[in-house]
Amino acid sequence: MPELTVGQYTLVANFLSFTIAVMGATTAFLWISRSQVSDPYKIAVTVSGIVTFIALYHYVRIYMSWSEVYTITDGVLVATGKSFNDSYRYVDWLLTVPLLLVELILVMKLSAQETVSKSVKLGLLAALMIILGYPGELSDVDGTRWLWWSLSMIPFLWIVYELFVGLKDAIAKQPPAVRGLVGMVRNLTIAAWAFYPIVFIFPMLGISGPVAETMVQIGYSIADIVAKALIGIMIFAIALKKSAVEVKV
Amino acid sequence: MPELTVGQYTLVANFLSFTIAVMGATTAFLWISRSQVSDPYKIAVTVSGIVTFIALYHYVRIYMSWSEVYTITDGVLVATGKSFNDSYRYVDWLLTVPLLLVELILVMKLSAQETVSKSVKLGLLAALMIILGYPGELSDVDGTRWLWWSLSMIPFLWIVYELFVGLKDAIAKQPPAVRGLVGMVRNLTIAAWAFYPIVFIFPMLGISGPVAETMVQIGYSIADIVAKALIGIMIFAIALKKSAVEVKV
Repeated sequence: MPELTVGQYTLVANFLSFTIAVMGATTAFLWISRSQVSDPYKIAVTVSGIVTFIALYHYVRIYMSWSEVYTITDGVLVATGKSFNDSYRYVDWLLTVPLLLVELILVMKLSAQETVSKSVKLGLLAALMIILGYPGELSDVDGTRWLWWSLSMIPFLWIVYELFVGLKDAIAKQPPAVRGLVGMVRNLTIAAWAFYPIVFIFPMLGISGPVAETMVQIGYSIADIVAKALIGIMIFAIALKKSAVEVKV
Repeated sequence: MPELTVGQYTLVANFLSFTIAVMGATTAFLWISRSQVSDPYKIAVTVSGIVTFIALYHYVRIYMSWSEVYTITDGVLVATGKSFNDSYRYVDWLLTVPLLLVELILVMKLSAQETVSKSVKLGLLAALMIILGYPGELSDVDGTRWLWWSLSMIPFLWIVYELFVGLKDAIAKQPPAVRGLVGMVRNLTIAAWAFYPIVFIFPMLGISGPVAETMVQIGYSIADIVAKALIGIMIFAIALKKSAVEVKV
């Protein structure tokens, strides 16, 4: 890890703590509010809370690892010799990224068969995308990083295609009251996810050092908050609206 | 414990942490979703969550013990002199393995008498299997390990026989909508459980060293995730389907 200033180190710690608070609060909100949606949507809301719950756990681990790298004594950063374990992020994504696609599919209430086939397909593609990124993340060699980045981009682009083309009909069949919102969740998911492969290539573009490290940690936190907490609450809003519309019919 | 590289040590730590996240997430999912199944299936789903909850506790213990064996200072592993307590796994299995058989029996909704007799029989056999394996696990002597392994295989094979022959009629009587899924749970349980006696004989076959230790820890974690979390979610799926089918009748 590059040598940070006390201000940068503390800013990242504060941001990680902020993310812990957001994930914990969203988990509680979703699980408590779950009883307000009708039965077909309960699993979608439960899973949305599971995603933020898993992220909560990993942000606690990331925060603890970050805290162990330095001690601040008399206003000066002193390295402890321990290294920052950023790979908890990959462990988190391996679980949460497939589940994020599953919650989107669940809230659309497709046929049982379509739900299973689309969840399995998108879930496996998402897991593959994360697994292929991991060896690149561990490497300092630009060529190795580009190789794994390129391999990981194949399932990523495939997922984007599936979300836009494969789900097009299903989105068109959603009740008018939520159609726009479902499309927004889809678009916001893609936008948030695009952040990760861009950050991945920062070191290959020579973007490194303390400012870059600070921005990367804060950027990952914001992307995770959008992709997990904000999306989770939007999934709940869709489930709530659909419950109301369908009871009336 | 053999001398590991930093990469191997961290990989196992990440995998143990991954398993903590999976067990915690599955526990929350099962307990929250329990309200969606009809009364006769609530205990099966509760017990499935109890199993992953017990595993969550033990994986936290295993992770903590693993973390105490070395410190990583300036990228170098330094032994602390503490030993890794792998026997938390046996304590976990002593509780969870009988309960896994109980959750399978409960979700089948046999007669009250059959439920009790089969749960007691299979539960005691499972506990006996774990207890007989434990003295072998503690020993470094090949002969001693083979002795206890052989003794432990008797209840193991008895359980396999009971699952295939003893439960055959009961599975055939399940509603058509879930019959395949119940059979899959039975087969997957046997497949996951077969992993443990195979890993047990690794040291007797001369398979040891840092790579073997890394693979064993990751393998145990995967087997536990399949046998507890995946099976638990499949039990919930069976309970949900049976609830829906039986309401309609």
